[in-house]
Amino acid sequence: MLGNMMEEPLLISAILEQAQENYPQAKVYSRVDGGIVEHSYEQLDQRSRCLAAYLQSSGVVAGERVASLAWNNHRHLELYYAVSGVGAVMHTINPRLYRDQVRYIFNHGEAEWLFIEPDFLPLLQEIEAELPWLRHIVVLAPNLAAEQAADSRYVAYEQLLASSEPLIPWPSFDENSAACLCYTSGTTGDPKGVLYSHRSTVLHAMASVAPNALNISADSVVMPVVPMYHVCAWGVPYSALLAGATLALPGSGMAGEALYELIEHTQATLLLGVPTVWLGLLQYLEGSGATIDSVETIGVGGAAAPPMLIKALERHGIYLMPIWGMTETSPLVSYGSSTKVLQAMPAEERQTLQATAGRGGFGVRLGLFGDDDRPLPRDGKTRGNLRVKGHWVLSNYFRQPGSALIDGWFDTGDVATLDAAGYLRIVDRKKDVIKSGGEWISSIDLENAALDHPQVLEACVIGARHLKWDERPLLLVVLKEGGKLDKAAITALMADKLAKWWLPDDIVAVESLPHTATGKLLKRDLRTRYRDYLLSEDITDEA
Amino acid sequence: MLGNMMEEPLLISAILEQAQENYPQAKVYSRVDGGIVEHSYEQLDQRSRCLAAYLQSSGVVAGERVASLAWNNHRHLELYYAVSGVGAVMHTINPRLYRDQVRYIFNHGEAEWLFIEPDFLPLLQEIEAELPWLRHIVVLAPNLAAEQAADSRYVAYEQLLASSEPLIPWPSFDENSAACLCYTSGTTGDPKGVLYSHRSTVLHAMASVAPNALNISADSVVMPVVPMYHVCAWGVPYSALLAGATLALPGSGMAGEALYELIEHTQATLLLGVPTVWLGLLQYLEGSGATIDSVETIGVGGAAAPPMLIKALERHGIYLMPIWGMTETSPLVSYGSSTKVLQAMPAEERQTLQATAGRGGFGVRLGLFGDDDRPLPRDGKTRGNLRVKGHWVLSNYFRQPGSALIDGWFDTGDVATLDAAGYLRIVDRKKDVIKSGGEWISSIDLENAALDHPQVLEACVIGARHLKWDERPLLLVVLKEGGKLDKAAITALMADKLAKWWLPDDIVAVESLPHTATGKLLKRDLRTRYRDYLLSEDITDEA
Ligand SMILES: Nc1ncnc2c1ncn2[C@@H]1O[C@H](COP(=O)(O)O)[C@@H](O)[C@H]1O
Repeated sequence: MLGNMMEEPLLISAILEQAQENYPQAKVYSRVDGGIVEHSYEQLDQRSRCLAAYLQSSGVVAGERVASLAWNNHRHLELYYAVSGVGAVMHTINPRLYRDQVRYIFNHGEAEWLFIEPDFLPLLQEIEAELPWLRHIVVLAPNLAAEQAADSRYVAYEQLLASSEPLIPWPSFDENSAACLCYTSGTTGDPKGVLYSHRSTVLHAMASVAPNALNISADSVVMPVVPMYHVCAWGVPYSALLAGATLALPGSGMAGEALYELIEHTQATLLLGVPTVWLGLLQYLEGSGATIDSVETIGVGGAAAPPMLIKALERHGIYLMPIWGMTETSPLVSYGSSTKVLQAMPAEERQTLQATAGRGGFGVRLGLFGDDDRPLPRDGKTRGNLRVKGHWVLSNYFRQPGSALIDGWFDTGDVATLDAAGYLRIVDRKKDVIKSGGEWISSIDLENAALDHPQVLEACVIGARHLKWDERPLLLVVLKEGGKLDKAAITALMADKLAKWWLPDDIVAVESLPHTATGKLLKRDLRTRYRDYLLSEDITDEA
Repeated sequence: MLGNMMEEPLLISAILEQAQENYPQAKVYSRVDGGIVEHSYEQLDQRSRCLAAYLQSSGVVAGERVASLAWNNHRHLELYYAVSGVGAVMHTINPRLYRDQVRYIFNHGEAEWLFIEPDFLPLLQEIEAELPWLRHIVVLAPNLAAEQAADSRYVAYEQLLASSEPLIPWPSFDENSAACLCYTSGTTGDPKGVLYSHRSTVLHAMASVAPNALNISADSVVMPVVPMYHVCAWGVPYSALLAGATLALPGSGMAGEALYELIEHTQATLLLGVPTVWLGLLQYLEGSGATIDSVETIGVGGAAAPPMLIKALERHGIYLMPIWGMTETSPLVSYGSSTKVLQAMPAEERQTLQATAGRGGFGVRLGLFGDDDRPLPRDGKTRGNLRVKGHWVLSNYFRQPGSALIDGWFDTGDVATLDAAGYLRIVDRKKDVIKSGGEWISSIDLENAALDHPQVLEACVIGARHLKWDERPLLLVVLKEGGKLDKAAITALMADKLAKWWLPDDIVAVESLPHTATGKLLKRDLRTRYRDYLLSEDITDEA
């Protein structure tokens, strides 16, 4: 027997439609065209509907991919709603990837339409000849530059909007329809596409505004410094509007000073991004003496939050909320939100919890499994393969035959523990863990300990081959300007926090460390390069 | 093209399953068997699974209704999860209704199983002979009393649980399956059943934990004083667990002292209920001098919150959050949650907003329509028929042929305004509005104004027939103990707040006022009784 309730699809267009009905006066700030502009939800709704009508009248059909190479700004936001709203698929492309990856992703998505920031036109020119699908190029700007004006494939975004009337009403269709396509950063092999549905996107947004999660309300001023070209900026373009929050979109201004300016201008309360961004902001604040009193919480994910960042933000009165997720999970899964219990703890205990990946919430289940696929206990000690399942987890990669799941669960590739209070600790990426004499050493823990040393700017630990122990940790550090490598001091500091047999066998100072386009350490190349480093040394076997 | 995401049904059992995984140590307090008992989510999960296994092995099948006549306690909560969890329909019955209505509702649901509180056995005995479907009676108690022990239809709840092993895993089925059946209080005609689905219930729970809504987190201690026998206690049995909150279930202890005791014991932070309950609690607090410092918010719905209650709670440091909803809408639709903007307002302005019905949120749309079904402007002035549509609004009544909708919208029967900031103001029930010379007067506004008079305990305004104006307001008041009716003083006080032509033509002191089983004023009978009251008087026509 079925219930007698209305059966309406969960659609992305409904988020915008209801946002402007419930909070017509709420605002979106956007750094664009060299300044900060302001739109109400009502204006945004009208502009998105104009774009939607344009897409429809230009023959864009349901399921068709529409590509973007764009910053976090209101135009990209309108694109998000208009493209998915008419049933097409928003295909965001990460311009920070290697040229060949950008080309690969573009062609894999087969989009005929590209909406592109003027900043990325040079990138487009480099690969244009190799993009057989591309037909229409919309430049996200008021007008076209002279070079483009002559080419009939080009049109300027604002002119297109001005020529169009709002689409009313939004079309209705199956909530499982594809809405957005995003690619993993692809540290091994070609990037893989994850095709989010309307349903998964809306449920993810509903879940992520909860107080246990991002805690977004009509009071919040949310500033996603995570890019809209990667995993939909953690879904904030949806969740912020769903909650009637003010949205502050930083455009291309991701450096310390620009971030500060936007925070100050919008009185931002919640910032979101990967750890490295906040190091940049902190450096600016410390250099300039500026303060950002409006900021209550910074949500940090994409990589483990180093304890030194937790403490540094706390000195500015800001709570660092750890977040765990990945492209395959839309991405938000677990949150270390501030609780009364947490706030009542001694600083050290609290900061230990802030260095976890938080707790799961309704919608996606967390499970620990052995290599034999059997479930493992949640005792805070047993390390296992972290697997997830739920409403916003993928089932298979775009255009890859076969399921991406094991017994209905998606294996994250992370090794983790879960404790009795529900806290998830990411030990390491499985491929980054150092297997020393049958025991596992977490590269993340070693890196975080090394970062506490005042001379260390960045740290990276990899497993290097070892005759007796198979693998031993090797620490690579980038020193701060003018710093000198003091191996003994760094080791002594690390010994305070870690078991002796975890300490790195050697420390090497390097000029810089390679990163992925989403800011993660790229350990693959380093592993190849330093694979035999410890074999060639005369190691005192005291580990 | 469909997305590539996991397609899992939204099921009620997943709320409990994930709650005990994410927050195994979270607690449920329950007033039962003469004391307050405590269970962890883990225990609750085990007990619910035992009950589920018992139901399955007893032949309870998907879609079958299972009835309850029960208080807010952990056993009723387990029932909620177990019955819906196995695919049967939780049919809650309101024991406060008239005997004939209880019988009608019971038979309309056709449940063979009844789970009943010992307190309600006498009620059952009165109607038992007229319940042809009833076969099995489970008494929500550790043991059966001697009278029942002899009757093979009876079994004691705790004995049933003890005899059963947990059901693992929960079965999976269509998310649109019926989950709960609840009846309207039926002020006109027979009560009507609303059949909630798993999907509607889960989406309602996800939406209601949001900061703009009930704002429930793992920090919250939530005490639903709204009964689980009516509209599923506003969905709190689902939303509290979804958020990992502590749940404080008051059992039959709805009077001031018992409420105070449970608040104190559990350090409750969020209380929910109809206005009259809080008058009782306030009276107890004022009489005893006790304080309830843990309480931050009281969510008030089911009837408009009188300004005097808003102010009285504020004196205790408690924010009264107005809530609007109805049985047909699961029930929660709009919330007057506390915002920074609100808190920064002068008291009077803030209290005015607290006297609205709050703002809508994602999931259910609010619309104002004329009698010609055309949409009306949201200008804060235009009064219209309030209609709603969305994921947790009914489409038709249980076993009533035909849609309950007009052009896809459900007409709430309320007359309302919507303003530019999204605030909903309920003017009146359409049938309660007083139509004076073509203009509308809100009975709610008059009642609230009268309640400000220190001698007035309860107030009720109805439209009485009038020769010149068709209808004019007549005010009925219940005076406080020892109070004397001072018509001039009451009218003078009301004149401060209301237009002169709104003031009642006469005031009558009555012993008591009739209420529905859910605590609302029952105006139908009063209208009949006082219909010609103003005709028989010599009215000075100064209105
Ligand atoms: N809070 C976190 N702590 C540790 N690792 C994280 C965290 N958040 C994300 N990651 C890592 O980032 C991966 C997802 O990368 P991506 O798909 O590019 O977003 C995860 O599998 C983790 O290894």
